[in-house]
Amino acid sequence: MPTISHRGLDMPASPIRRLVPYAEKAVEKGVKVIHLNIGQPDIKTPKVAMDAIRNIDLEIVEYSHSAGNESYRKKVAEKFRGLGMKVDYQDFLITTGGSEAIIFSFLSCLNPGEEIIIPEPFYANYNGFAAMAGINVVPIPSSIEDGFALPPIEEFEKAMTPNTKGILICNPNNPTGYLYSMDEMLQLRDLVAKHDLYLFSDEVYREFCYDGEKHISAMHLEGIENNVVMVDSVSKRYSECGVRIGALVTKNKDVINTALKYGQARLSPPGLGQIVGEASLETPPEYFDNVYNEYIARRNFIVDGLNKIPGVYSPMPKGAFYTVAKLPVDDADLFCQWILSDFEYKNHTVMMAPASGFYCTPGKGKDEVRIAYVLKVEDLALALEVLEKALKAYPGRTL
Amino acid sequence: MPTISHRGLDMPASPIRRLVPYAEKAVEKGVKVIHLNIGQPDIKTPKVAMDAIRNIDLEIVEYSHSAGNESYRKKVAEKFRGLGMKVDYQDFLITTGGSEAIIFSFLSCLNPGEEIIIPEPFYANYNGFAAMAGINVVPIPSSIEDGFALPPIEEFEKAMTPNTKGILICNPNNPTGYLYSMDEMLQLRDLVAKHDLYLFSDEVYREFCYDGEKHISAMHLEGIENNVVMVDSVSKRYSECGVRIGALVTKNKDVINTALKYGQARLSPPGLGQIVGEASLETPPEYFDNVYNEYIARRNFIVDGLNKIPGVYSPMPKGAFYTVAKLPVDDADLFCQWILSDFEYKNHTVMMAPASGFYCTPGKGKDEVRIAYVLKVEDLALALEVLEKALKAYPGRTL
Repeated sequence: MPTISHRGLDMPASPIRRLVPYAEKAVEKGVKVIHLNIGQPDIKTPKVAMDAIRNIDLEIVEYSHSAGNESYRKKVAEKFRGLGMKVDYQDFLITTGGSEAIIFSFLSCLNPGEEIIIPEPFYANYNGFAAMAGINVVPIPSSIEDGFALPPIEEFEKAMTPNTKGILICNPNNPTGYLYSMDEMLQLRDLVAKHDLYLFSDEVYREFCYDGEKHISAMHLEGIENNVVMVDSVSKRYSECGVRIGALVTKNKDVINTALKYGQARLSPPGLGQIVGEASLETPPEYFDNVYNEYIARRNFIVDGLNKIPGVYSPMPKGAFYTVAKLPVDDADLFCQWILSDFEYKNHTVMMAPASGFYCTPGKGKDEVRIAYVLKVEDLALALEVLEKALKAYPGRTL
Repeated sequence: MPTISHRGLDMPASPIRRLVPYAEKAVEKGVKVIHLNIGQPDIKTPKVAMDAIRNIDLEIVEYSHSAGNESYRKKVAEKFRGLGMKVDYQDFLITTGGSEAIIFSFLSCLNPGEEIIIPEPFYANYNGFAAMAGINVVPIPSSIEDGFALPPIEEFEKAMTPNTKGILICNPNNPTGYLYSMDEMLQLRDLVAKHDLYLFSDEVYREFCYDGEKHISAMHLEGIENNVVMVDSVSKRYSECGVRIGALVTKNKDVINTALKYGQARLSPPGLGQIVGEASLETPPEYFDNVYNEYIARRNFIVDGLNKIPGVYSPMPKGAFYTVAKLPVDDADLFCQWILSDFEYKNHTVMMAPASGFYCTPGKGKDEVRIAYVLKVEDLALALEVLEKALKAYPGRTL
């Protein structure tokens, strides 16, 4: 039997994946699992998007242009110009989800063995994409005490080596919900310009900014136009995660032309998803108002509720729909397993993502969990009740 | 400005891509281009598939399972069992087109720098996927004189090094249309078993076998169940290239589990495409009868027509919808450019894929082109007329 590759063996499994057998145990016992572990919103996909697919008048679902349908790229570029980005449709490569945009960015910009710096905790799948591209992730810590603000620029500079090729940020942040301020973005701009690095900016949660805060895109930063590679996705914006449509956006012609070569090898991004994505651009503003109000209510409810539980602390995130909370437990991995397999309250239990999976540095985030507030307030209320009771009953509690 | 990666610079561009500016010149002059260059069939997608998408009753297009919807995997496994393959739904990873199945296969099974042997000419994008995975392609020649039959097994053994990890075949073959016989498949089986190699088998043209020949799948071969990784796609079978749904199929649990880790990193394959793919399994047999009859007629027409042109030779392919033909020209790359930019007959010209792009060995296939017969016979007739006149007028003709 031929052997698996080293990189295949080393490929990180999803941190939530490890919990699945424990969740299955809960289900087997008839206990209902409230999912705070995944960013799959319960918000409906816009009607205009679903109608576009229901009224499809194609007779053949053909390959599209490898960079995505021109009509779609033109409309999305126009929308982005409305957000203050100086972009043309030729700066876009439509990808299979934001995931493919990240992989193509890494493959286009970095050689195997080169490095990107990412503030941790960070979206766990960046590790997987880095492994696929054979590049190294260098984490620098942000901390719950600072609400997961951008680490000091000196920390970035300390982490740099001759192999450092770029910095990756996720803004607003998954898993922390942190939204980078104008001041922080300007610091990043200066750093990137000084060392001529790539700034990879994952902005798939752009629409989810709260408390009147404005989203500062990496595409807004002047003077580093050739350094910025933005990653976009329709998944969260329009609650259509399953269509798998994203984009790689950059003013750097060498990068977009190189990424297109990877795009041509895989022929085209999903055709039906592009139709949905294009139609979604016509989503009426009320849709976003409703979504915004719903998420503000959910965020306030869950974060206030978490902070009322003895020993629990969560900062108030300003973006996305996640928060990282500190729990009074010995080991959040064990606690997240235990609450699924050994605990129930009112016949319910809760599935959360242990934060350790979002840190690269071993031991970090050991008492933290990521909570996605993508459920109705009633469900969040029950989840908080279950969590509070569980923390009292958990043998490894530290309070 | 930060630099592009070496692998980005080295990433092969699509061989057809180089012709695009020449095709654009033809269009500018008002000359109509008959496309024999791409495998985008003009056959309609089955009605049952389009109806499934028109009648979609989802309110949210959610992520699917990373391995693909279980209902889909179960039905497609059942269909494949009907084709004599001993497969279970857990042997399937649904992928974003056959392309992703190939990338995941390479990443799962080979380390950077390891090698696969592929008979050339071969599907040009294998080079791109190999570049993405950092593995090396070792070509061994098949030749037009033998109708592109499997090279002698000694040629495979001569090409082996300690880094050889597998063999990749495409059956029926793109670009040659060659269909491997039972005898050839058994030779491959013995070779793979002897050296414990992977046999990657791209079978996306499985339904396109002519003259009563039966398709022998790598999954039919006994005794090498853990060596075979099959690549599948709905693109050509149901003329739905744009939905981007394929599959990696293997009995090797280590491979499927490793590939799933890559699948989890990108979350899920396209959701709407999976709905189309699942519904396509209900396509009535008449659909395939019509497609079969259409392609038989097209193949016979184009191959007979090619062989009637002085100095042109094409074998009679037994599968897929391509043929590689030898032309009486100095350089098929130049001829394919010239016919687009400098020639027209009855206000039409022809776009073909120079075969050099399907060979790895420099200089090979210099007087060959790949012709896709995915158009109506009337269009093929005009294309043959244009080609014959062009070959008479071309300054670099060798006849």
